[in-house]
Amino acid sequence: MMTGKLSLIGCGPGAIDLLTLRALNSIKEADLVLYDRLVNPELLAYKKSGAVCQYVGKGHSDGGKQQVQINQLIAKALQAGQNVARLKSGDPLIFGRAAEELVIANEHNAEIEIVPGITSSLAAAAEAMITVTERQELQSFVITTGRTADETATPDWMSALRPGTCVAFYMGVARAWKIQSTLMAAGIPGDLPADWVERAGQDNRRVISTQLQTLAHDAEKFGIQNPAILLLRYPVSHVAENASAISYRHAT
Amino acid sequence: MMTGKLSLIGCGPGAIDLLTLRALNSIKEADLVLYDRLVNPELLAYKKSGAVCQYVGKGHSDGGKQQVQINQLIAKALQAGQNVARLKSGDPLIFGRAAEELVIANEHNAEIEIVPGITSSLAAAAEAMITVTERQELQSFVITTGRTADETATPDWMSALRPGTCVAFYMGVARAWKIQSTLMAAGIPGDLPADWVERAGQDNRRVISTQLQTLAHDAEKFGIQNPAILLLRYPVSHVAENASAISYRHAT
Repeated sequence: MMTGKLSLIGCGPGAIDLLTLRALNSIKEADLVLYDRLVNPELLAYKKSGAVCQYVGKGHSDGGKQQVQINQLIAKALQAGQNVARLKSGDPLIFGRAAEELVIANEHNAEIEIVPGITSSLAAAAEAMITVTERQELQSFVITTGRTADETATPDWMSALRPGTCVAFYMGVARAWKIQSTLMAAGIPGDLPADWVERAGQDNRRVISTQLQTLAHDAEKFGIQNPAILLLRYPVSHVAENASAISYRHAT
Repeated sequence: MMTGKLSLIGCGPGAIDLLTLRALNSIKEADLVLYDRLVNPELLAYKKSGAVCQYVGKGHSDGGKQQVQINQLIAKALQAGQNVARLKSGDPLIFGRAAEELVIANEHNAEIEIVPGITSSLAAAAEAMITVTERQELQSFVITTGRTADETATPDWMSALRPGTCVAFYMGVARAWKIQSTLMAAGIPGDLPADWVERAGQDNRRVISTQLQTLAHDAEKFGIQNPAILLLRYPVSHVAENASAISYRHAT
């Protein structure tokens, strides 16, 4: 029985030069290259001669059908002993549906390689020049999503946004009003700094600096589109400055 | 007045091939290269001819004195109009003391570039093949630290480790017992999966898979040393499986 290889390759937020050397080398070795919607197609130039490239980008509302087809493509190539490079935007272990593809690789007893990539929120922070941790101010950095598998469910955003925390929301544009209203209803100060970073790491990037209380309004006003990251910061000193206002809000 | 440039460059967890192309290009343009303890010194080979390299690694207990000296070095070079590459392990905006160096650059009206890097926890997750987010199981990924500026303070770990969350602890080895006991006292199930990843992304890496209730014991038993990342996962389904046990613990 032939044993193939599956490489889950993080390709960063889209700019070619934010790829790692390891990612480039892995692409060069693949027989089959499967790439996502947000992966820069210029990367495909690095494939070896004779390698097959296939676009497997998902639409917004295909109900996961596409993932089943991707899994079948991977399974078939591994059965033939091929080296499959699965190019994912950002880091493959962050909102990359890696778990399902790893199951396929294990079922086929394939070699597995995971190449970490620059996740979009850190590219966004670099663009906006925001330190997501800061001595005595921000001890934790939280990566979460504005979108959940169950559209009616609300992730536990209130617990995430504690004093001393910076939170990055992926896929948050469509639910900007929900994020803002949920957090403000939980008593989180409306004047916390909030930054939208659109197309981080690319030439046509854009940073819109706002506050929690205006982030949804500004997303509409400036026409923020995905891919975009929302960065919300709750520095420790902000709590002290606003102690009375916060306890008032919590009491109501 | 001459205007210099400060590039804060993320160099990833230590393996040369986890550097991005953008980081390599920035190193090549620098007049002065300042590098940290965990940055791979092989990177210095990429400097341009005539560039000066200086080691500015910090000891464990220098009380921040070294940072003042680094700030002075940066200030002096910027005043001379130089291009300064500040090489940091991982990502510069995660536990990289970037804020203080950005202040210096702004004071000198210098150009600023921030090059994101592979942060250690994502390299660690790739080694351990752990998906830090997972559809319907893990919606958030939290990066936090076992060490705080005030050694007696305890970061808000209990709030971070909610159901549906994977938490990565940086610099957690020395405080492994504290992490374990604080979380267990808060009623978090002792059988949550925990993984120590030592020297992620390097040839001599090591992964020790354990549980919350044995993570400190195993850190001692296997002699885990920094740099190491602790990954703790609290999948949503774990709550359902253990509902009665958890409510018992919360009640006491």
